[in-house]
Amino acid sequence: MNTLELMKQISRPSPSKIVLLVLDGLGGLPSPETGKTELETARTPNLDNLASLGICGLCDPVAPGITPGSAPGHAALFGYDPLTSDFGRGVLEAVGIDFELQPEDVAARGNFCTVDKAGLITDRRAGRIPTEKSTELCQLLDKQVIEDVEIIVRPVREHRFAVVFRGDGLSPELPDSDPQQVGAAPLTITPLESAAGKMAHVASQFVDKAKSILDGRKPANMILLRGFSQRPQFPTMSEIYKLKPAAIATYPMYRGLARLVGMDVLETGTSIEDEFTTLAKNYGDYDFFFLHVKATDSSGEDGDFDRKVRIIEQVDNVLPQLTGLQPDVIVVTSDHSTPAMLKGHSWHPAPVLLYSRWCRTDKVTEFSESACILGGLGRIPSMQIMPLAMANALKLTKFGA
Amino acid sequence: MNTLELMKQISRPSPSKIVLLVLDGLGGLPSPETGKTELETARTPNLDNLASLGICGLCDPVAPGITPGSAPGHAALFGYDPLTSDFGRGVLEAVGIDFELQPEDVAARGNFCTVDKAGLITDRRAGRIPTEKSTELCQLLDKQVIEDVEIIVRPVREHRFAVVFRGDGLSPELPDSDPQQVGAAPLTITPLESAAGKMAHVASQFVDKAKSILDGRKPANMILLRGFSQRPQFPTMSEIYKLKPAAIATYPMYRGLARLVGMDVLETGTSIEDEFTTLAKNYGDYDFFFLHVKATDSSGEDGDFDRKVRIIEQVDNVLPQLTGLQPDVIVVTSDHSTPAMLKGHSWHPAPVLLYSRWCRTDKVTEFSESACILGGLGRIPSMQIMPLAMANALKLTKFGA
Repeated sequence: MNTLELMKQISRPSPSKIVLLVLDGLGGLPSPETGKTELETARTPNLDNLASLGICGLCDPVAPGITPGSAPGHAALFGYDPLTSDFGRGVLEAVGIDFELQPEDVAARGNFCTVDKAGLITDRRAGRIPTEKSTELCQLLDKQVIEDVEIIVRPVREHRFAVVFRGDGLSPELPDSDPQQVGAAPLTITPLESAAGKMAHVASQFVDKAKSILDGRKPANMILLRGFSQRPQFPTMSEIYKLKPAAIATYPMYRGLARLVGMDVLETGTSIEDEFTTLAKNYGDYDFFFLHVKATDSSGEDGDFDRKVRIIEQVDNVLPQLTGLQPDVIVVTSDHSTPAMLKGHSWHPAPVLLYSRWCRTDKVTEFSESACILGGLGRIPSMQIMPLAMANALKLTKFGA
Repeated sequence: MNTLELMKQISRPSPSKIVLLVLDGLGGLPSPETGKTELETARTPNLDNLASLGICGLCDPVAPGITPGSAPGHAALFGYDPLTSDFGRGVLEAVGIDFELQPEDVAARGNFCTVDKAGLITDRRAGRIPTEKSTELCQLLDKQVIEDVEIIVRPVREHRFAVVFRGDGLSPELPDSDPQQVGAAPLTITPLESAAGKMAHVASQFVDKAKSILDGRKPANMILLRGFSQRPQFPTMSEIYKLKPAAIATYPMYRGLARLVGMDVLETGTSIEDEFTTLAKNYGDYDFFFLHVKATDSSGEDGDFDRKVRIIEQVDNVLPQLTGLQPDVIVVTSDHSTPAMLKGHSWHPAPVLLYSRWCRTDKVTEFSESACILGGLGRIPSMQIMPLAMANALKLTKFGA
């Protein structure tokens, strides 16, 4: 029995409420000047107070040493095993632009690329063409119908686009057409299982058509497809935890991930303050809230230590709006670390803070990486956070006689 | 290879001795007045001294967030995976009243219940009839023989009883007759595999007979059966660890669990002092002792913080009798937490203390939840305690070349 099956067996509905506040990429590394991380530099009286009342620790999204992408990082926070819960690259690309993927749709990630006269790839990304250019090219490819399959093409960013195949009897069991190297020809799309015959045929025809439509065009004259996939068949968070879950996120990727695990996605604005207001406004209608703050990660990716500090302080400043609602359980954590010093996601464990009336508090009085090392949660896999939140909300029954 | 297989491979007999002292439900939550848990409130100079000399930590019986019953909690302490080691509900009911279950016996848990004239259940527990009444009814049902199968019926507590089917060719692969709801009729017992045909036939006839024997009686006129099971086929602790293990416990359930993993169960009295005397008296005859103290759990279940404190102090007071025997390894821990504040088992990790000459001690000088957070064992699954005890007793050889 894995953890999800166990959760399914022992979880029960109750009126208690859980708020999972995810500060994307929160964990950091010390500035060489001060020896303090972004979180340790920020003035965070409200988070520190919550840490004093709650229990803290460090969590590994996937495993020690593993730097996760957003999908496994969030899968783990929602309680799914990040190593076995594959959302599908094409699916993530589609939901990442707020595309409403239907259960039978097959999605793929596309690249605009360049090929030479012999058809060999000269640039897999067509010089990272600007999004506006890519949008124009997508319009040329969009809305085709091959056999009875509707093909929807949407720009993502720069050379990247999402393509969705909608029709009956489609299987995603196809190989990538992207050989992942220059000097090679795009690969033929042949079915990996017999049921994928129709899909392979349609995808191949689509690539051929794209080639003729783009022929002679600049800056891209060909496409590459990869990550054919359908919506994952994971049990939803309602099925597992008997929760009525809602997501608040300003970035489409996170709304998409939340939708894939069955959350209602709430309309919100573009600022952190908007998100907290959305939480307050919808607080009566759900018993689980995933509130996602993106800017901690973006500033980390940009290597902007000071901006990341300011954003953490901004979150701390609005935190009383959340605590004032008096949720039974509050978790503040991160899907992974994004140290400004590294300008990217990293493998460092993320700080985690859990507050509830029943949490058996520890001696940590400050929400920071170095304080969390000594916290009562110890160092746990991130996928154990949901069971802990559920337990502290008194939503789990006893296991075994 | 799982942990038990590994243990089987690398364990070897030796004269060193291990004492596993389990204070059932020891872990607690702070009193709101003092901010201290039961264990932190208790005056425990001897346990604190042992903590100073030993190494401490926190252990999760099943996994973070999971509240275990007694069976999975103890399975983990004996080194068995609590998620896959199912003792069987019927078996636990039988061993829980000190019934000597034979390997081929099939045991089930029974409820006395009431049904209306149409045979539909009106109360699954017959108003939780007193144990004395239940004992009378059990005598009416006991000692039947159906085909060549002997049927033994024993009262447990209130409406609960254990029934044991003894005969040749019995399989436990039967569904429950208990539909777990009122207004429904008891379910027909049909075999879940072809080998269970005889058992299904006998069980059905037993239920029919019980119905006619109880017909018109009060306060119960029918029975419900569930959890048909046979003694689990786990390897014994002797097979795994090459130990000669003995159990000392005042409550039948824990004697039963110990018997199921192959321990000798020693005769003892009813007090904590009796148990420690039994340990001293039998110390020469075994190399592993499981000493179980129940009252820490019972007082926690009753929500009696002060009584739990006193019982911990009582244990501390007799501890020198144990340490005076100079076992090579002493482990003091718990099968789960039972905070008086929650009046029941909980998910909070249990404190664990391991003393041996070779334990690489830490800086913990007090046996308490908050001190154990900073202990050298960290936060570990309870099923890792036995390998640690075995290692510290120098009973494990090197793994791999």
